[in-house]
Amino acid sequence: MAKAKQKEQPVILVTNDDGVTAPGIRNLVEAVKDLGKIVVVAPDKPQSGMGHAITIGQPLRLTSVQYFEGVEAYQCTGTPVDCVKLAVDKVLHRKPDLCISGINHGANHSINVIYSGTMSAAVEAAIESIPSIGFSLLDHSIEANFDGARKYARIIVQQMLKKKVDKHTVLNVNIPAVDESLIKGIRICRQAYAKYEEDFVERNDPNGRKYYWLTGEFVNFDKGRDTDVWALENNYVSLVPVQFDLTNYVLKDKLQKMWKF
Amino acid sequence: MAKAKQKEQPVILVTNDDGVTAPGIRNLVEAVKDLGKIVVVAPDKPQSGMGHAITIGQPLRLTSVQYFEGVEAYQCTGTPVDCVKLAVDKVLHRKPDLCISGINHGANHSINVIYSGTMSAAVEAAIESIPSIGFSLLDHSIEANFDGARKYARIIVQQMLKKKVDKHTVLNVNIPAVDESLIKGIRICRQAYAKYEEDFVERNDPNGRKYYWLTGEFVNFDKGRDTDVWALENNYVSLVPVQFDLTNYVLKDKLQKMWKF
Repeated sequence: MAKAKQKEQPVILVTNDDGVTAPGIRNLVEAVKDLGKIVVVAPDKPQSGMGHAITIGQPLRLTSVQYFEGVEAYQCTGTPVDCVKLAVDKVLHRKPDLCISGINHGANHSINVIYSGTMSAAVEAAIESIPSIGFSLLDHSIEANFDGARKYARIIVQQMLKKKVDKHTVLNVNIPAVDESLIKGIRICRQAYAKYEEDFVERNDPNGRKYYWLTGEFVNFDKGRDTDVWALENNYVSLVPVQFDLTNYVLKDKLQKMWKF
Repeated sequence: MAKAKQKEQPVILVTNDDGVTAPGIRNLVEAVKDLGKIVVVAPDKPQSGMGHAITIGQPLRLTSVQYFEGVEAYQCTGTPVDCVKLAVDKVLHRKPDLCISGINHGANHSINVIYSGTMSAAVEAAIESIPSIGFSLLDHSIEANFDGARKYARIIVQQMLKKKVDKHTVLNVNIPAVDESLIKGIRICRQAYAKYEEDFVERNDPNGRKYYWLTGEFVNFDKGRDTDVWALENNYVSLVPVQFDLTNYVLKDKLQKMWKF
């Protein structure tokens, strides 16, 4: 009986892009620890902004760590996407039932989904036929309060485990940085067209050579009330289903009619 | 008169992910040199598989180089996406009329679009309202024959400059590695669901510590005849219009009806 029960436990792979020691991933593990067999494979250092990068020219290392009480965990020298690939092939030796990534320290709404290591790990899982969710809290601080994020991460993971979802499902979940009591619920949204307007700060090093720091101001070009940015501004948790077929079908049909070579 | 003519010249930003000294980018510049004012800003080293990574924790350097006869060119220490950002803000001080990326040494069809630095540079341009095209030749070799790729890159760039296209247009163009005379033309396609099935090679270093090399076998799960993989297998140039709104709208509508929290 006990054995049968154990067998039914879903395997949940946990990763992130802030690194295995970040408070965000610890909070995510705590939030879902009793919902399945948890295995952590996460980067050994911060990998924010790594997008869907993979490591081609270098080998990877994988080291067992004891950062999570009672949970099997590894740190990996690669990117978040490398972590997912390596976890499936060399740690789990099977596809987990669910992959969750985060909780990211900082927003991954709107166009950020493309730059985000957190979301790229989730997308990688879905490419490999593993349903997945990326979680991000709109607070960069190392001391951020994850109470609300933990609560909603748990609710959404339970939903994913309960419902029969397509194996390529990816959800991008962002949580507003307000007190848990102020969060109005979960909104299923589309990705806003909102982005950072880049500006590089130009400086000179001590040898007089120029260098540039990326910086920028976040601008929302999208006035829709069905977007993730709108939901978050109105104290909702935003949930955007994401896809990895990047084909622009509308434009494809148009070009097929209009372009003759 | 001469001045007016010069003013009409479109500005074309050229980048890649194989690095500024790769034969592929030299061939791309040669193919389109007379179609506008060309400016090259490309990575100073290979950046394959970097996806949409950006450099956050480090500053960037930009150095003028003389690799392309009569063409303003710079190498950048960052990723392909960094190159586009920096080119717009610090080199051109304006949005170019077109951004082209490549010619990549190796395929970027199917799911590769997500891992590809070449394609991520093109996608970054489109996010920034610059129409763009990524070009890839299905030959990894440094000594690949770019004749066919050059010919079709030129045809497609001319088409993009002639037609009024949406400023967020991104095209993913792959060229089969066959003699130019065997190429049957250009097919407008969708992205195939085809991917590398990963397998890590496990080795021990001289100190007995394990390390892993990413490897894998390419598998096409998609039997459609409207895909980029089909087109390339049948000696067509594949052209897939790409989008950066990753919302899965079908699933969004479904979840809005089915999921109650």
